[in-house]
Amino acid sequence: MPDTNRQIILKSRPEGWVTLDDFEMRQGDVPAPGPGDVLVRAVFMSLDPYMRGRMDAAKSYAANFDVGEPLKARIIGQVSASENDAFQPGDVVFGMLDWADYSLAAGGRGLRHVDADLAPLPYHLGALGMPGMTAWIGMELGEPKEGETVFVSAASGAVGQIAGQIGRLRGCRVVGSAGSDAKVAFLADELGFDAAFNYKTADGILAALESEAPEGLDVYFDNAGGAVLEAALDHANPFARFIECGMISQYNLSREETPGIRNLTHINRKRIRMQGFIVSDHADRLDEFTDEMAS
Amino acid sequence: MPDTNRQIILKSRPEGWVTLDDFEMRQGDVPAPGPGDVLVRAVFMSLDPYMRGRMDAAKSYAANFDVGEPLKARIIGQVSASENDAFQPGDVVFGMLDWADYSLAAGGRGLRHVDADLAPLPYHLGALGMPGMTAWIGMELGEPKEGETVFVSAASGAVGQIAGQIGRLRGCRVVGSAGSDAKVAFLADELGFDAAFNYKTADGILAALESEAPEGLDVYFDNAGGAVLEAALDHANPFARFIECGMISQYNLSREETPGIRNLTHINRKRIRMQGFIVSDHADRLDEFTDEMAS
Repeated sequence: MPDTNRQIILKSRPEGWVTLDDFEMRQGDVPAPGPGDVLVRAVFMSLDPYMRGRMDAAKSYAANFDVGEPLKARIIGQVSASENDAFQPGDVVFGMLDWADYSLAAGGRGLRHVDADLAPLPYHLGALGMPGMTAWIGMELGEPKEGETVFVSAASGAVGQIAGQIGRLRGCRVVGSAGSDAKVAFLADELGFDAAFNYKTADGILAALESEAPEGLDVYFDNAGGAVLEAALDHANPFARFIECGMISQYNLSREETPGIRNLTHINRKRIRMQGFIVSDHADRLDEFTDEMAS
Repeated sequence: MPDTNRQIILKSRPEGWVTLDDFEMRQGDVPAPGPGDVLVRAVFMSLDPYMRGRMDAAKSYAANFDVGEPLKARIIGQVSASENDAFQPGDVVFGMLDWADYSLAAGGRGLRHVDADLAPLPYHLGALGMPGMTAWIGMELGEPKEGETVFVSAASGAVGQIAGQIGRLRGCRVVGSAGSDAKVAFLADELGFDAAFNYKTADGILAALESEAPEGLDVYFDNAGGAVLEAALDHANPFARFIECGMISQYNLSREETPGIRNLTHINRKRIRMQGFIVSDHADRLDEFTDEMAS
C-alpha cells in the first residue's frame, strides 16, 4: 500500500462550462480507519451528468459538493483496511466515495458488498448500477407498449443505451439521437437501435424524427432537453409519455442563456404526460431491477 | 316564431389576435326540420378559450371551424320544431350548435335533454357543464391532498373558479391569479380563495407566489402557460402535479412570438408530473361528475 493518497478537490464553483481550473489535485497521507471505519481503494468510478448540478451552490436534488473538499462518485473498490466486522480486507464493495485513490467510509455507512460473480465489475456501475436502474425506472414510468415508438436522446450515454435496450425488449421501435457520427454508428451497429441520427448534423431535428419515426413518438426518454425536447413535442403522438430523466443541454447555461421551450401547448392538445423522476426515490425497487436486469 | 335567423359566420381565419373583421353576421330564413331533425332556439351559449384553436387552420384537438360557416358553441336551448320522436317542442336541450338564433340538429344527433330542476339553466353550461367537468377531471388528475397548496391561474374563468372550489372542498389552501383587480376581489371575496393576486400588477409573479403560498405549490392547475407557468415551476414543491388544462397566454401567438419556458429542469429535479388532458377524453365519467357536482 502506497503511503500517499491523491484526491481531486473542487477548487471553485464553475460558472457556465466547467474548466480544469475548477479542480485541483491534493496529495496527502492515506487515512487510517478509526473504530467502525472502512478504508476503500477505488477500482472503478462512475462520472455522471448529475454531478454538474452538484458543483453549483444552487440547490439540486443531491447534496452539493463542497468547495475545498474532494468530489464524490459512485465507486466500485476493494477494502484495504477495516475496523468494521462487516467488511474484511479484499472485499469488493460499492459506495459513494471520494474522487481519490483511497476513501474512508466512516462507520462503513453507505458501503455494500458487490457480487463479483454476477457480472464484470464495471457493469455494477453501469447496466446493473445507477445508470441501468435509472433507465429501467424511467421506462417503467413510460409504459412502452409493443409496437409503439420510443425515442431516446443522448442515447449513447450510460442511461440512454440501456433505455433503448429496454425499449427493444418491450417490442418497440427504438430511435436514438446522439451528437457524433461515431456515437450514431455505435447505436445502430452495436446496440441494435432501429434508427439513430446525429442531432448536430441532421437537416433539422424534427425532419430527422419524421424520417426515422414515421409513426410519431409514443415514449420520449429525455436526457437532453432544449431543441431536442421541442422537436419531440412537435412529433409526439396523442397520449405520449415524456420521461424527464435529464436535460444535459441546459446544465451549463444560466436561466438567461437557456433557450426556452415554446411549444408546450402540445402537452395540453396531445394530452402528454411529462414525468420527472430521480432514481434514488425508487430504491425500494432495487432487487426487482437487479433480478430483471441481470437476466 | 320570427321568420329570420341570425348566424355569426367565420369570415377569415385570424392571424394572431382575433378581431371583429374575422366575423360577419348573416341573416336568412329559419331552417325547417327534415325527417329526424330537431330545430333548437338558443337560450344560453358558452364561449370558451378552446374556440381560439378551432379558428386556426392548424390541427387542434377539436374539429376546426370552417370559413364561411357558422361557428359552433355549447348551447342550452329549447326545441322549436321537431321531426324526431325523442324531442318535443318546448323541451330544454343541450347541444353543440351554431352561433345563431336557431340551429338544426340533423337527426337529433348530439342533443340531450337537460334536467332543468337540477339547477338554473346556465349552470348546465358552467359548473355542471363542460367547464365544471374540465375542472373536476383536472383536479382528479392533480390528486390534491388535505393540507396541500393548490394554485390556479386564470382563476376567475369558468374552469378556474370551479377548480378552486374543488381544491377548497379537498381541504387545500387555494391561491388564484387573475388579470384585473376586480377579478382578484371576486376570487377573494365571493369565491373564498385563500389568497389571490393580479399577475399583471404584482411585483413579480414568483414573489407573489412566495408571499401567498409560503409552503410552495403541490398542485398547479394551469390555464395560463407562459410567465405564470415559469414562476409556478420555480415555486413548486418536490413531487408537485401540474395539470395542463390550457395556456391561454399563448393562443394568439405564433411559435416565434411565444416566450419559451426556460426552467423545465425543475420537472426533473423536483420530480414534477405534468399532465395534459382534454375533458372530452373522460366522457365516461360524466355521471360520476354530475352526481358529485350537483351535490
